[in-house]
Amino acid sequence: MRTLYEQLAESLEQRIREGQLRPGERLPSVRQACTQAQVSAATVFQAYYLLESRGLIEARPRSGYYVRPPARGHARAARPEAARTESTPVAISELVFEVLDSTRDREVVPLGSAFPAPELFPLERLARAGARAMRHLAPQALTAELTAGNVRLREALRARYVRQGIAVNPDDPIITNGAMEALNLCLQAVTQPGDTVAVESPTFYAALQALERLHLRAIEIPTDPTSGVDPDGLAEVLRQHRVAACWLMPSFQNPLGALMTTSRRQAIVRTLSQAGVPVVEDDVYGELFHGATRPVPLKAFDRDGLVMHCSSFSKCLAPGYRVGWAAAGRHAATVQRLKMMSSLATAVPSQLALAAYMEEGGLDRHLRQLRLTLARNLARVRQWVLRHFPPGTRVSQPQGGYFLWVQLPDPVDTLALHRAALAQGISVAPGAIFSADMRFQNSLRLNAGHPDDPRVEGAIRVLGALARQAEPPR
Amino acid sequence: MRTLYEQLAESLEQRIREGQLRPGERLPSVRQACTQAQVSAATVFQAYYLLESRGLIEARPRSGYYVRPPARGHARAARPEAARTESTPVAISELVFEVLDSTRDREVVPLGSAFPAPELFPLERLARAGARAMRHLAPQALTAELTAGNVRLREALRARYVRQGIAVNPDDPIITNGAMEALNLCLQAVTQPGDTVAVESPTFYAALQALERLHLRAIEIPTDPTSGVDPDGLAEVLRQHRVAACWLMPSFQNPLGALMTTSRRQAIVRTLSQAGVPVVEDDVYGELFHGATRPVPLKAFDRDGLVMHCSSFSKCLAPGYRVGWAAAGRHAATVQRLKMMSSLATAVPSQLALAAYMEEGGLDRHLRQLRLTLARNLARVRQWVLRHFPPGTRVSQPQGGYFLWVQLPDPVDTLALHRAALAQGISVAPGAIFSADMRFQNSLRLNAGHPDDPRVEGAIRVLGALARQAEPPR
Repeated sequence: MRTLYEQLAESLEQRIREGQLRPGERLPSVRQACTQAQVSAATVFQAYYLLESRGLIEARPRSGYYVRPPARGHARAARPEAARTESTPVAISELVFEVLDSTRDREVVPLGSAFPAPELFPLERLARAGARAMRHLAPQALTAELTAGNVRLREALRARYVRQGIAVNPDDPIITNGAMEALNLCLQAVTQPGDTVAVESPTFYAALQALERLHLRAIEIPTDPTSGVDPDGLAEVLRQHRVAACWLMPSFQNPLGALMTTSRRQAIVRTLSQAGVPVVEDDVYGELFHGATRPVPLKAFDRDGLVMHCSSFSKCLAPGYRVGWAAAGRHAATVQRLKMMSSLATAVPSQLALAAYMEEGGLDRHLRQLRLTLARNLARVRQWVLRHFPPGTRVSQPQGGYFLWVQLPDPVDTLALHRAALAQGISVAPGAIFSADMRFQNSLRLNAGHPDDPRVEGAIRVLGALARQAEPPR
Repeated sequence: MRTLYEQLAESLEQRIREGQLRPGERLPSVRQACTQAQVSAATVFQAYYLLESRGLIEARPRSGYYVRPPARGHARAARPEAARTESTPVAISELVFEVLDSTRDREVVPLGSAFPAPELFPLERLARAGARAMRHLAPQALTAELTAGNVRLREALRARYVRQGIAVNPDDPIITNGAMEALNLCLQAVTQPGDTVAVESPTFYAALQALERLHLRAIEIPTDPTSGVDPDGLAEVLRQHRVAACWLMPSFQNPLGALMTTSRRQAIVRTLSQAGVPVVEDDVYGELFHGATRPVPLKAFDRDGLVMHCSSFSKCLAPGYRVGWAAAGRHAATVQRLKMMSSLATAVPSQLALAAYMEEGGLDRHLRQLRLTLARNLARVRQWVLRHFPPGTRVSQPQGGYFLWVQLPDPVDTLALHRAALAQGISVAPGAIFSADMRFQNSLRLNAGHPDDPRVEGAIRVLGALARQAEPPR
């Protein structure tokens, strides 16, 4: 069911698409819109934020909201780059560690961070739920629920799968120490050292690190910044290489923000099923959609138990609790055994807190609010980038999550830019950490998930100035 | 400083050793001893429990405590078996999973379990400490303390190392998801697939599983059931094989309960240092000594940063919290990076609860009580085994922990015994799961860490009857 603000946004979007509201035209003021649509000011604001996040309108200081020229945003959308056709061993870690270390200092503006601001999460309510649950814990539960995890939490997660129309096997989900562990265990369950794994291009660096740790090789699949992995490109890779597994992030891919269309998802699951290749689906941003409905995971189209769906609460509810899970289909038993061998079980206090929070209700309300906040902020940061970066800069226009992928117009080494920015107290994630062979030097990932940090616009201005001065790579 | 009960136990022990109290002689009643030594009844009980756990005296129902004949206990102590001299690939997991699965059912008497009874731990106080700490959590801490762990908890652990006279490097300790993760990360930090790792014989099955998961080979070092790994045996193994690392449990080894002497520890660290071979030291039972002082870890003798000391709170304070740590010496940075790659960080609620508990004080008092309880119970279960098992059965006499290693007098397949016992609602850990090639078929490990379970003596009687009827292995 659509909420009021989603209905309002939709009707406005239709008027823009049909030309009734034209580029440059001012939208009704919030007060006017309230009267016209018979809704509250909050509803109007939410609708406008949503349209802003979709790139359809823009806020002008002290003036209101205006319809954006479509061509401009489109021309500046991020552009795909050619993927590598040879598989490569992976040795990316040193660089990733250098970059991640730099984001930990609280004095640094965290545009290179992978986490949204912790203030966005209901930490007090979680702590209270956890405290109550721990006080009433049956001591036997501490060892009885090894290794798969707390029964109540698993039930609550299963109920959410059912709501999404996804059938999971009775052993699923297995609770893990964050999605990171889930992803690693799933990958290990279906590979042996020396195997080749197909990944997006650019790729989330933790996928590359997992490959490195497990002595695997990477082969890149062409990935569009808007629509994600190309099914034909994947089919081509499967024809040319012996691929043991695939690691994909279909929703709001890190770093591109790409959202795979439903038909692409279906085609990809079909292709992988035909080839019998399992896929590790990283869906940690799936709940952070800015539009009206949650993207449907690959898992929903899986008939052969080959999709290993991994997610967590770390990005959408409870950072630091380290609770994730894997619905690993036909490999569930193997994943559970690997979990037992490598870390035995997941922390019970964290699991109980989340189980209690979910049973009390309120997760969906929290998520609705979080999505709006992130959508609004992504739109703002995007505008700042377009304003302050050199002309010709391309910026992704994600429909969810909190990352922007920025491609600079001239050949520039963003790793050097990262170091220069750090000297000025700003972190960014340079493109080089998202590829096994240090490509994407020209790009960087910015975190727009810190809505209350007043330093962000100034930091974007500084980054823009640095980008103008930057030298081409040697 | 010795406590009153330890002083009392010592003076009684001296009188036994010097023949003033002779085998079969009755000790003073608790009331008499109170008057003689001017101490409380609790102190006398604790002293008697301690002597009982050391095998020096035994309780006779409704009669009091008696000095035990030394020869009998000695003759029946567990006997070492020859170690394998060839390295072997490891594929033990299926069997281990079968056995571990069987211990989860609450209806089953958990003699095969690896955990002591959860009622032995201050779970309520931990929950309260955790609740307070979570309510006052600075949200930034949730992401700022990735990956090494909570600063306060690490400080508290460092202080305990200092108290034991152990210097740890400034990056240490790294907080992990239980000792299991610490051990796995340390092992991975110093090995590559195909490498050979020297292990005890018998070996803790999780070490074998870690080797299996990381595609490593095992070479066994001769291990005495009382004094642990033989330094000469280790030196011989290092001469004959290219060993990448060692995995040892010097204190109350699982499953033998062996306690390495200080001089053996020094010799082993010297030998490994000369060969430049790192050692993963599993010290999860180190705090569960039944005697007067904590065994000194190998780490204390390490001058080259080659000892990777791993432990946790899971067996001594907080089962289910999944908080362990590694002080990994010269490999600390590598371990931290592997941790980041495989599970990112350890659950913050668990870490905060433990940090707050340690800061409030009371850990040492809890540990003193726990040691007494476990010592008393180990002695009781040991007596039951000697009473109910076939004549000639050998039973270990551990100075700490809560495991008994039982060697049956005739060739018997304890895996079949495990299955027969399970059919009667009793789990045991058969010897076969403690070796890469299914040896130790004649032995089994019993858990004596369930002091309040009234079913234990009856279960031991059933096991004894099954052992008498058991068939030799085919």
